[in-house]
Amino acid sequence: MCEASVYMEKDGKEELLLDSVDVLEPQEGGKIYLRNLAGEQKTVTARIKRIRLVEHKIILEKVEG
Amino acid sequence: MCEASVYMEKDGKEELLLDSVDVLEPQEGGKIYLRNLAGEQKTVTARIKRIRLVEHKIILEKVEG
Repeated sequence: MCEASVYMEKDGKEELLLDSVDVLEPQEGGKIYLRNLAGEQKTVTARIKRIRLVEHKIILEKVEG
Repeated sequence: MCEASVYMEKDGKEELLLDSVDVLEPQEGGKIYLRNLAGEQKTVTARIKRIRLVEHKIILEKVEG
């Protein structure tokens, strides 16, 4: 399977937010909606910093200000 | 492998921008940098509309205005 783990970068460290993520959709107001294969959903205020699909990794970061 | 095809949505249709994409990084000025497994690189002015990893699909859209 080709899902990814989504991490939030905080103070240079990556904290796991949700694993086995299938769906990611940026939304209004700087939010990002996530859903994983188990049907778990999260919406966070963040932006995408980088995606590395071969590593199965999506890194988010808090929006400044 | 877990790469994805990246499409640009235009007038409701999806046009293939780059396949076998491994790396995606939003950049300053509303740009998105893409790199695939063959080492091909593209930078486009767009935003991420949705990601479906199980379908190996990343959909971008032009920024309005």
